Amino acid sequence: MSEADKNAVWNSAITRIAPNKVAVRGYDIAELMGHVSFGSAVHLILTGQLPAPPIARLMDAILVSSIDHGATPPSALAARTVASTGASLSASVAAGIMSINRHHGGAIEDCARQLKAIADRSARESLSMDEAASRSLVAMREAGERMPGFGHRLHTKDPRTARLFELAREAGVDGMHMHAARAVEKAFAAVKKSLPINVDGAIGAILADLGINPAAFNGIFMIARAPGLIAHVIEEQTRERPMRRIDPVNHGYDGPPPRSVSQ
Amino acid sequence: MSEADKNAVWNSAITRIAPNKVAVRGYDIAELMGHVSFGSAVHLILTGQLPAPPIARLMDAILVSSIDHGATPPSALAARTVASTGASLSASVAAGIMSINRHHGGAIEDCARQLKAIADRSARESLSMDEAASRSLVAMREAGERMPGFGHRLHTKDPRTARLFELAREAGVDGMHMHAARAVEKAFAAVKKSLPINVDGAIGAILADLGINPAAFNGIFMIARAPGLIAHVIEEQTRERPMRRIDPVNHGYDGPPPRSVSQ
Amino acid sequence: MSEADKNAVWNSAITRIAPNKVAVRGYDIAELMGHVSFGSAVHLILTGQLPAPPIARLMDAILVSSIDHGATPPSALAARTVASTGASLSASVAAGIMSINRHHGGAIEDCARQLKAIADRSARESLSMDEAASRSLVAMREAGERMPGFGHRLHTKDPRTARLFELAREAGVDGMHMHAARAVEKAFAAVKKSLPINVDGAIGAILADLGINPAAFNGIFMIARAPGLIAHVIEEQTRERPMRRIDPVNHGYDGPPPRSVSQ
Amino acid sequence: MSEADKNAVWNSAITRIAPNKVAVRGYDIAELMGHVSFGSAVHLILTGQLPAPPIARLMDAILVSSIDHGATPPSALAARTVASTGASLSASVAAGIMSINRHHGGAIEDCARQLKAIADRSARESLSMDEAASRSLVAMREAGERMPGFGHRLHTKDPRTARLFELAREAGVDGMHMHAARAVEKAFAAVKKSLPINVDGAIGAILADLGINPAAFNGIFMIARAPGLIAHVIEEQTRERPMRRIDPVNHGYDGPPPRSVSQ
Repeated sequence: MSEADKNAVWNSAITRIAPNKVAVRGYDIAELMGHVSFGSAVHLILTGQLPAPPIARLMDAILVSSIDHGATPPSALAARTVASTGASLSASVAAGIMSINRHHGGAIEDCARQLKAIADRSARESLSMDEAASRSLVAMREAGERMPGFGHRLHTKDPRTARLFELAREAGVDGMHMHAARAVEKAFAAVKKSLPINVDGAIGAILADLGINPAAFNGIFMIARAPGLIAHVIEEQTRERPMRRIDPVNHGYDGPPPRSVSQ
Repeated sequence: MSEADKNAVWNSAITRIAPNKVAVRGYDIAELMGHVSFGSAVHLILTGQLPAPPIARLMDAILVSSIDHGATPPSALAARTVASTGASLSASVAAGIMSINRHHGGAIEDCARQLKAIADRSARESLSMDEAASRSLVAMREAGERMPGFGHRLHTKDPRTARLFELAREAGVDGMHMHAARAVEKAFAAVKKSLPINVDGAIGAILADLGINPAAFNGIFMIARAPGLIAHVIEEQTRERPMRRIDPVNHGYDGPPPRSVSQ
Repeated sequence: MSEADKNAVWNSAITRIAPNKVAVRGYDIAELMGHVSFGSAVHLILTGQLPAPPIARLMDAILVSSIDHGATPPSALAARTVASTGASLSASVAAGIMSINRHHGGAIEDCARQLKAIADRSARESLSMDEAASRSLVAMREAGERMPGFGHRLHTKDPRTARLFELAREAGVDGMHMHAARAVEKAFAAVKKSLPINVDGAIGAILADLGINPAAFNGIFMIARAPGLIAHVIEEQTRERPMRRIDPVNHGYDGPPPRSVSQ
Repeated sequence: MSEADKNAVWNSAITRIAPNKVAVRGYDIAELMGHVSFGSAVHLILTGQLPAPPIARLMDAILVSSIDHGATPPSALAARTVASTGASLSASVAAGIMSINRHHGGAIEDCARQLKAIADRSARESLSMDEAASRSLVAMREAGERMPGFGHRLHTKDPRTARLFELAREAGVDGMHMHAARAVEKAFAAVKKSLPINVDGAIGAILADLGINPAAFNGIFMIARAPGLIAHVIEEQTRERPMRRIDPVNHGYDGPPPRSVSQ
């Protein structure tokens, strides 16, 4: 029985701490360790539910897909800039985390909300999903709005997107948001616009189909990107001189050459 | 061939970005997705090496072990305090990340460094590990220093510690740091001090035996704790009124009752 | 002639930097030093205009009025909590700055906007300011909204408020926002509510009457509070032990006894 | 009578808060307002002493001297980078504050500590200050260390430095740190090095001669720079598009043309 502590001034429903006992959303943490992946534990702590193994694998894949995108995103630049002044690892990483907002990572949530609106419209107005998508895009264009989560500055065919949808289908996930996402791609193609769904849009569609609260989507992106930010800060601290001017565009890669997991 | 871009002003060895191609430490990200857990990808991005499956499982377990410890740690309190003023999710989480420093999470690195010093002394002075541990603790006591990573305010037998060592042994990890850790526990017991290794100490010993750079240990704790911080911020934003006084001690748990993974 | 640098990728209108020359909004910084107070320079950098001496004195008084409010505000608690983990001075102060948001300091801007709405209504609907205030408060009450900038948890007669209005009048400042503020106080009194304007409301009314952009008001509060945050962090670092539980309510004052400027 | 509150769990010596009463370091805040400049209040809250008027004017000049240095310092770039992602004003400014560390602003404290070491050596070894400076610089050079606070990337004759020393002398401040600073300049000149004291060094020497705790020096720089950071963030938010690539070098000035305070 999970009644609240009687003397408590306030309560939290996340983790119960007692002598020699730590339980996350009701699960003994020592039992979770070794039994579930970190992606599974992320799903648990954010939704209250431990996912089935295929969903856990999908959660891990979503986190892996966003672990880093090089040194040009503002989160990496902010973290490196702060690190170059002699800041600690945690302060530098925090500057990177603070950069994950509406315009950086926010398309995950925004795209999911637009896809839901399209799916809702399809149901409400008894339109096909394609028709609902098409009409919604026209309305957005007339209002001067852009559809978030579609198109990419660099990637015309984002390698992460196809893989995410493949893994989602393998996990049996293919709900109204993913359906709406395909309808949007078709609607763009019909007007000769090459605006395929990007990695943010794909993650938004999948997380929404998993039933996760959109308010947590940017948080999932923060979790995913934290290792990348840490790697950038440590590299800045160990490889560059303090207070250098960090060119946000003209930098290259000199790490390991291409290699394969299966080797 | 991994030569650096000729026009680049500076280089990074983390992630190569090219049109329709993202490769982390040389591995195509689309190939990593679905093949490796997030713990495995964390190991890759921080060390440059993809771990064998048992080590990957251990990395996931380490991350799971530190995903949350309730609302009393300063990182959770800082994140909730900032959230209560109306801050964004990312700013609130950043305040929590900034709280991970020498005194909070730092015992992971500090313990690993002390264990290494004991193991080095054992080798250098041709002492048994037990003798080296015992002499080092005497020296620390005389210098007024505490051994980091041993003893816990609340947990006399931390449930996470035994499980971590068990998983490490299952993964074939049992190097000089873990050996030194057991010697320290014995040395404390010999002088009637009940100061068992705690979760920070256990993680420090294992990560050091895995050969990971100690400068990254606090970063691994940040990755692990990020989901907990996000859960606390969302709970604060949705369940509490703005600007409340957050009692750091008198709060309880009213989440799901105890349940088991195997159910 | 202020034309932009021809080769510049982008421009800023704040400070011109050239060898042996620094000019803020056009003024040589060496000439400003010793001639204007910091409050005056704050006005200059945020508005582009150097204020007349009485306004400069008022700006300094506004900054002084908000320099600290003890250890209970969330900005001080966040800064102390982060400091207690071993964070640097700048990271700890940053956590305090991040706490200045809609619910903490935000009443300065929100009150100014509501006072403007009341003044605009008075003009638009040809109502007396008292009548406009009274009707607006009724509408807010019916909509379940609170008037920001009025009433205080602790101070029934905030000592800073009367002094601010006195200094404003001495500087010849008494525009529509201050007029509307008095009308709101009267309207509250007429319905037997003791909700005098508080320090946030007074600052909001005065800054708005000075013609400063409301988007900068929270920034002015950050400038004012920065010294207090720094004092709290240094006190935490030098006087308290790391990782202590910081009671947000039960703390006292043991500094210098009451003394007077004129002594 | 300044005894601590009997029921208090802990005490602070900064600000006493009571109903309708706020006293900073013992001074009624309403009395401070209008009587002292913000620079004076900064001195009070950080040292516990209200400065005499000439020192107050000097404190204001120190703050004014560091209010901004254009868009190239890492604090401005970090603040703008975070702002470009859609972050709030306070989060963006916090990222700038977090950038004030050893390598950015830290020369103020480091220079003061080196000047003290030179002055101490002069007293201890009965050397002239010039001789002590000369020997100390030789020792630093041999140890591969740089003297902090001397020389500047851009300014060979920093306009702020001469003005600061002039104002210090006008305020009757000219102690051992300023004396040592001149000796260092002479010693550099004697070996044909043009490394005049820079603005950080001058502030460090003056604050140290004022008897202020060096641990607060970086805090004084944070206070001074906060308005500049706020101006940069507001300019970024209102003038630039989100997620732009911020060139850290190739940007110009298009603000007001040169003008004079006395006009």
